[in-house]
Amino acid sequence: MIDYTLRKRAAIVGIGQTAYSKNSGRTELALACEAIGSALNDAGIRPDEVDGVVRYDMDAIDEARLTSHFGFKNLSWMSETSYGGTGGNAVVVHAAAAIAAGVANTIVCYRALNERSGRRYGQATTWVSDGAGAARAFQAPWGVLTPAQRFAFFARRHMIEYGTTSRQFGAVAVAMRRHAMRNPHAMMQAPMTIDDHQESRMIVDPLRLFDCCIESDGACALVVTRADRARDCHHRPAWILGAAQGSGTKADGIIFREDLATAESVSTAANVYRSAGVRPEDIDAVMIYDHFTPFVIMSLEAYGFCGRGEGGPFVEGGRIEFDGELPVNTHGGNLSEAYIHGLPHVVEAVRQLRGTSTSQVKNAEVILSCSSVAQLSAAVILARD
Amino acid sequence: MIDYTLRKRAAIVGIGQTAYSKNSGRTELALACEAIGSALNDAGIRPDEVDGVVRYDMDAIDEARLTSHFGFKNLSWMSETSYGGTGGNAVVVHAAAAIAAGVANTIVCYRALNERSGRRYGQATTWVSDGAGAARAFQAPWGVLTPAQRFAFFARRHMIEYGTTSRQFGAVAVAMRRHAMRNPHAMMQAPMTIDDHQESRMIVDPLRLFDCCIESDGACALVVTRADRARDCHHRPAWILGAAQGSGTKADGIIFREDLATAESVSTAANVYRSAGVRPEDIDAVMIYDHFTPFVIMSLEAYGFCGRGEGGPFVEGGRIEFDGELPVNTHGGNLSEAYIHGLPHVVEAVRQLRGTSTSQVKNAEVILSCSSVAQLSAAVILARD
Repeated sequence: MIDYTLRKRAAIVGIGQTAYSKNSGRTELALACEAIGSALNDAGIRPDEVDGVVRYDMDAIDEARLTSHFGFKNLSWMSETSYGGTGGNAVVVHAAAAIAAGVANTIVCYRALNERSGRRYGQATTWVSDGAGAARAFQAPWGVLTPAQRFAFFARRHMIEYGTTSRQFGAVAVAMRRHAMRNPHAMMQAPMTIDDHQESRMIVDPLRLFDCCIESDGACALVVTRADRARDCHHRPAWILGAAQGSGTKADGIIFREDLATAESVSTAANVYRSAGVRPEDIDAVMIYDHFTPFVIMSLEAYGFCGRGEGGPFVEGGRIEFDGELPVNTHGGNLSEAYIHGLPHVVEAVRQLRGTSTSQVKNAEVILSCSSVAQLSAAVILARD
Repeated sequence: MIDYTLRKRAAIVGIGQTAYSKNSGRTELALACEAIGSALNDAGIRPDEVDGVVRYDMDAIDEARLTSHFGFKNLSWMSETSYGGTGGNAVVVHAAAAIAAGVANTIVCYRALNERSGRRYGQATTWVSDGAGAARAFQAPWGVLTPAQRFAFFARRHMIEYGTTSRQFGAVAVAMRRHAMRNPHAMMQAPMTIDDHQESRMIVDPLRLFDCCIESDGACALVVTRADRARDCHHRPAWILGAAQGSGTKADGIIFREDLATAESVSTAANVYRSAGVRPEDIDAVMIYDHFTPFVIMSLEAYGFCGRGEGGPFVEGGRIEFDGELPVNTHGGNLSEAYIHGLPHVVEAVRQLRGTSTSQVKNAEVILSCSSVAQLSAAVILARD
């Protein structure tokens, strides 16, 4: 039993982002520095006050580069999280823990990537190593080479077990697109209907083009600081009520699990709610890592917004749109805003609590941001005063 | 000013290691699992009690592989540290912070590598990227391709500024070898004199062969747990009194710094002493990351055991041998025991506090383990009851 002591010890006080595009024409270092500078300006915190950096291990820009190129001088906490999809929330878990433990006061979290113009994660890879790539040796001979191929197993299993339909996946895509069209920073602005989704080409059965997240260049950043400092910043603090990471079983070689109709984030859900002292009923909006539409459905189940297997019907009828019962990804998500590896979901949660989203949820007071990538999971609950 | 709350909130209760060799003949996964299993047995803690994993980002074996292959199921904390040399202490900083923040109870830290039979870090590389490798683009054209070439600048600068001599570097190498010869697990067992050091071949002026750490295959691991659990384990706990990480300035492109005669770990030293509530005079033995002999001298200066520039004379006359005034690396260090990226230094600190070192320091009660790699730094102060 974990004795959580994170509650309201820290808050997110700064958010920043670059333009999102298919080709930034700039280095990832330049993108990182712009997003970090923007987040610090947003908070009203000077760079020399920063004493912590938390990043995705996949980020090419590390803390050593930031000492040289951004000028950080006083870092006393540096940590990394693994597996991109979990990272957006996991960096907040690390920052909250470091501040609660007293080893840092003000921490910058960021993600910068030229994922579209540079190395595209969606492309097939046959790379195998003794390390994290080893599980691929058991998948590649069967033609399982891309994320869509791996995650299609989960989608199909959910359809078989629970009768979930492709049109329900489409309802997720359509909701994300509606939010993106209201967000001028979003890359995808063309209208989309469920019929458009149904007519989009099959990528890996049952995943169609519009079930898959987009690929993007860009960066975004957060500034997290301790409670007393948070009250003196430019904007209303987004308090970190609770934060949790979790591992699934067989996180390596996910397609060989016994149960493929779940993203295995139930323990993370239990921990984040206990940590925050709130229940699913208290949540006003949810930001869900949406690499593929079926994982929005599985996450809604895992985090207790509906029963297991009920996620398909749950997302229909506009329920997850910003003016529905449980708004999801009011920025447009990975599917329609941009793919900056899940960190924009946290940025949007902060906007909702400030009342500055382009798809503002009325009286948004408590927001859950969560990821259930199938390897690992992480979640954060943020709240306004 | 950092408000440290780490003191005695956690302890190292388990240590484990594999055989160290030039060719393990096994995968890094097998090495990691053996070392972790050994550390858990040593502690008397079952694998299902482990809820945290902290690792080096350079380790090929990640937490997802350990869920599949070691069977961890309940992980609620996963973090990584960067830059190998700092990692041995930085993993303890992370574990202590996560436990103090209440997000995990029992954390495994490890390092597994086939560094000699696989990819050898000491070899020349011209790899350059937009990321952490970019600084190499400004070094490679001048022939600066290996760690020894980069760190030789620091060694030479220390000689120029302070009159430090190669024979003083040799005194470090000889002390490490003496300790290794008393440690049956150490790879280097041949006697060494300062004349042997002086006659060893020049690698990169002024660094001779015996100024450079060895290259090894192997793994070791630690188990860190919270205070109340620590008292019920098999061995006397090694309490974490204090822990700190730090960044230098221009940690990227280190050879372009204004001041090359320091490893820039003064702030880490100040933080670790304040965190622990002890002074250099209270330290009974020091474990120092010894990738190259001159960095032992610079670390002794940075951590306050002698004045700046006085490290050369300080290491002479057996002062840093296990029966001297300030024993250093009583296991033999990177230079003569094995190169497992600095984690064996923490393992040896625990042995000293248990009274089980093969070069036991009498009445060892407080041990500093520190790294000053020139990029980043980290340090831990451990104590017995």
